[in-house]
Amino acid sequence: MQLTGAQLIGFGTSRQGTTTFTGMDAGTGQALSPDFHEATAAEVDQAVQLAAAAFPAYSHTTPEKRAAFLERIGDEIMALGDELLEGCTRETALPAARLTGERGRTVGQLKLFAAVLREGSWVEARIDTALPDRQPPRPDLRRMLIPLGPVGVFGASNFPLAFSVAGGDTASALAAGCPVVFKGHPAHPATSERVAAAIIRAARATGMPEGVFSLVQGGSVAVGMALVEHPLVKAIGFTGSFRGGKALFDAANRREEPIPVYAEMGSTNPVFVLPGILREKGAALAEGLAASVTLGVGQFCTNPGLFVALQGEETTDFIHKTGQALAGSAPGAMLTGNMLKAYRSGVDRLAAVPGTRVAARAQAPDGRAGAALLQAEARAFLEHPELAEEVFGPSTVAVVAGSREELMAVADGLKGHLTATVHGTAEDLREYQPLLQRLAQKVGRLVINGFPTGVEVSYAMQHGGPYPATTDSRTTSVGTAAISRFARPLCYQGFPDELLPDALKNANPLNVWRMVNGEWTKGKVGS
Amino acid sequence: MQLTGAQLIGFGTSRQGTTTFTGMDAGTGQALSPDFHEATAAEVDQAVQLAAAAFPAYSHTTPEKRAAFLERIGDEIMALGDELLEGCTRETALPAARLTGERGRTVGQLKLFAAVLREGSWVEARIDTALPDRQPPRPDLRRMLIPLGPVGVFGASNFPLAFSVAGGDTASALAAGCPVVFKGHPAHPATSERVAAAIIRAARATGMPEGVFSLVQGGSVAVGMALVEHPLVKAIGFTGSFRGGKALFDAANRREEPIPVYAEMGSTNPVFVLPGILREKGAALAEGLAASVTLGVGQFCTNPGLFVALQGEETTDFIHKTGQALAGSAPGAMLTGNMLKAYRSGVDRLAAVPGTRVAARAQAPDGRAGAALLQAEARAFLEHPELAEEVFGPSTVAVVAGSREELMAVADGLKGHLTATVHGTAEDLREYQPLLQRLAQKVGRLVINGFPTGVEVSYAMQHGGPYPATTDSRTTSVGTAAISRFARPLCYQGFPDELLPDALKNANPLNVWRMVNGEWTKGKVGS
Repeated sequence: MQLTGAQLIGFGTSRQGTTTFTGMDAGTGQALSPDFHEATAAEVDQAVQLAAAAFPAYSHTTPEKRAAFLERIGDEIMALGDELLEGCTRETALPAARLTGERGRTVGQLKLFAAVLREGSWVEARIDTALPDRQPPRPDLRRMLIPLGPVGVFGASNFPLAFSVAGGDTASALAAGCPVVFKGHPAHPATSERVAAAIIRAARATGMPEGVFSLVQGGSVAVGMALVEHPLVKAIGFTGSFRGGKALFDAANRREEPIPVYAEMGSTNPVFVLPGILREKGAALAEGLAASVTLGVGQFCTNPGLFVALQGEETTDFIHKTGQALAGSAPGAMLTGNMLKAYRSGVDRLAAVPGTRVAARAQAPDGRAGAALLQAEARAFLEHPELAEEVFGPSTVAVVAGSREELMAVADGLKGHLTATVHGTAEDLREYQPLLQRLAQKVGRLVINGFPTGVEVSYAMQHGGPYPATTDSRTTSVGTAAISRFARPLCYQGFPDELLPDALKNANPLNVWRMVNGEWTKGKVGS
Repeated sequence: MQLTGAQLIGFGTSRQGTTTFTGMDAGTGQALSPDFHEATAAEVDQAVQLAAAAFPAYSHTTPEKRAAFLERIGDEIMALGDELLEGCTRETALPAARLTGERGRTVGQLKLFAAVLREGSWVEARIDTALPDRQPPRPDLRRMLIPLGPVGVFGASNFPLAFSVAGGDTASALAAGCPVVFKGHPAHPATSERVAAAIIRAARATGMPEGVFSLVQGGSVAVGMALVEHPLVKAIGFTGSFRGGKALFDAANRREEPIPVYAEMGSTNPVFVLPGILREKGAALAEGLAASVTLGVGQFCTNPGLFVALQGEETTDFIHKTGQALAGSAPGAMLTGNMLKAYRSGVDRLAAVPGTRVAARAQAPDGRAGAALLQAEARAFLEHPELAEEVFGPSTVAVVAGSREELMAVADGLKGHLTATVHGTAEDLREYQPLLQRLAQKVGRLVINGFPTGVEVSYAMQHGGPYPATTDSRTTSVGTAAISRFARPLCYQGFPDELLPDALKNANPLNVWRMVNGEWTKGKVGS
């Protein structure tokens, strides 16, 4: 398709701004064509106004129609073919195989939300039938989730498909019944435009109202702020850096009407390796850990940037082997030149912490990131919590605890993370149950004998975690539960059956699970 | 029981502060004994530290033990007998019959949460079983809600039992597994101490850890701020004024680690009266509306402070009859002298809005609040949104719309409210479906042919609503769903069965509803 470099607003394009920017070839650092226009405040307003105008109709579409829309988005993305993947590789340096997988994840995610809509129970219907003879009488009360309104979504650079224009935030907001205004990430504007155009084609083809989706582009903070501060925007989805997410969170709370911000801001995802398993299979674990650290040039939110073990011969050997594997790993191009710079200075910053040293480092040519292993005593770690701050890229910090108590203190000293991992034999795990309990307080997902990278899109996934990993630990940005972020409960009191939404009608025409007088059932209400 | 005037911290008392305050006899304005000590920052810290120390043990108590604790709290409250009710009447001027009912509601609420714990499905267990042969393999993923940590709760003045020390916020937080530090409302310190002592007796009797509940008292903002700003507090529950709730919300978001604030800040709960029903039963509706406005001297969050009708003879008559009923209603003592002052100046403020007049007003002696009816044209209302701001007390504003379009504009101009109500015949309601759809966007509960006062404690209740009615429209502060405010999901990946919480074990020993591979079931997992 012909790229326009414009905002895709409603079913049209808009190119009002005079500021332009380009995508960059992430492998060579060269500017790509075309020029993209940065959205003006008026364009952001237009997109949000259209979203708000679309909301009444879109929020009342049937679940089946929304499901068909989501599936059609997937079809339109597939129809973009190799042009999408090749353009995306140019913009991100992510290899074709990875992007093919990520496209599959993106389309699969849309299909999964379509299935959630068809099944229908996500609205959490609850019905308390009237008790007219009680004193005082109880009215008929029926409660379900309804969509919040127009949602602003910010894409991440590191998943240009699965956490970008048609990613999990967009898919779950559209599934919930909320129109989306998407702020494209400036690191992959062409990919953003291609996918946005696919969404808009799907909206037209399935009869969705104009404004159900718009794309605004821009490299400056102003575009995003105009979106967050727009009074008609009712929630924000974001995946990216702590600085970016926190700025949106603060702006959203300063509004006359504060709105929820679901910002997934990454973390270091600590891995605890217990003594028994180190003895049993330390070498294999070192390989596995190094592979997880360097996967995708370390550019995952769940990258294990920290591991902790008790001092001893096996630990020394484990760290040595991990270092060897990292030093021998292939250097890779990062998503942007700025990220590479930030990675290098991040490793230097960690290395400069007293009591910390670089234990291994892969050679890397200009323009490529080499993996790095840093090592610190637990005492240094406890005194310098900045060692637990995320460095985006293929590095990790080994923390050696002098005692079990010190290892527990490291766990207690952690802030919020997306995940924590414990490797242990059955005996290790029984012995270290208090460690599991402490880590449970710090994370959204607790992994035993696995690696944190690899976030399944499924029913039971929780991709979130206590602050500062996210701004809302009560929610997930991956998996089917993500849909409820964009909805809120409404109680219908004393409604005649015909005026109730289908999910709450006596006959249960959508055949959904409902809590009726405290009992879950798919049955009808009344005779 | 002998009142101490002290903080009840853990299982002990503390009286470090030198600032004291007293309760006031709400009927006479006289100071009551004893003096209550305002909590110092050190005392707040001590209470929170004890709560944090109690958290690991308390959060791992079995649901059955927590249920027994909640029920015992109810028993201990009942055992306080008439002393509780009489003291509370002195402090609040609420009559014995009302407080007897409110005590029943409070104890019933504790029992209902005990039932929720015994049933157990509130943890929203989800299980995705492993797919080891898939490429890539899917790990075993199990997700459930876990408690957030110590919670700070602020009581309301208008429900000294049901929304205070042992009210819905405390009951739901304790049910979720979170220790509570309660900031007593300075308008009823003796009632607060009595109920807090009952909770602590229940904690001792049922073997709960010290610190699971503490009471701190105080009349100044500093005590509350110390609680919200304490780094170990993980969430806040609040019922009260917009000013108070917003201040806590802002403070919580300014923290190094922002925390959720569930502030229910009241609203005016607009009532729309449609033409057909006015013709059919305008007189009865006027009686009903006036009764709802004056119920409990208008001191309910769901008090209907605003009603809207289309101009015409029936409406003129309806407003006249409502005014007659209000003018003839008995004046009452308000909860505090300051509230009475605020009520009177609030009515004056409304009356001073251009295009608004006082249509009826009950005579009231010194120290009593008389009901008031104000009347405004819709145009005045649309130009002066302050007419929709809550005046706490027995007043209401009649808004007369010149046309159906103007009536819709009034609905569109509303901010967030706890409830909205529509009175209409079957034909009215069919004709005004767009009104229902617009109001649905503005409220947490939409009532047909009822009155908003009377908030059932049940499964399907939603007591919340868009900002500024609350700071979190996604949650309710009344009903069983309130429990999930104090919990967040944790995903357990690759856990051996024996290390999983009971709700996630293969055998489903708690017999709870779980979503297994996307299907809700009470069955076991695996063979």
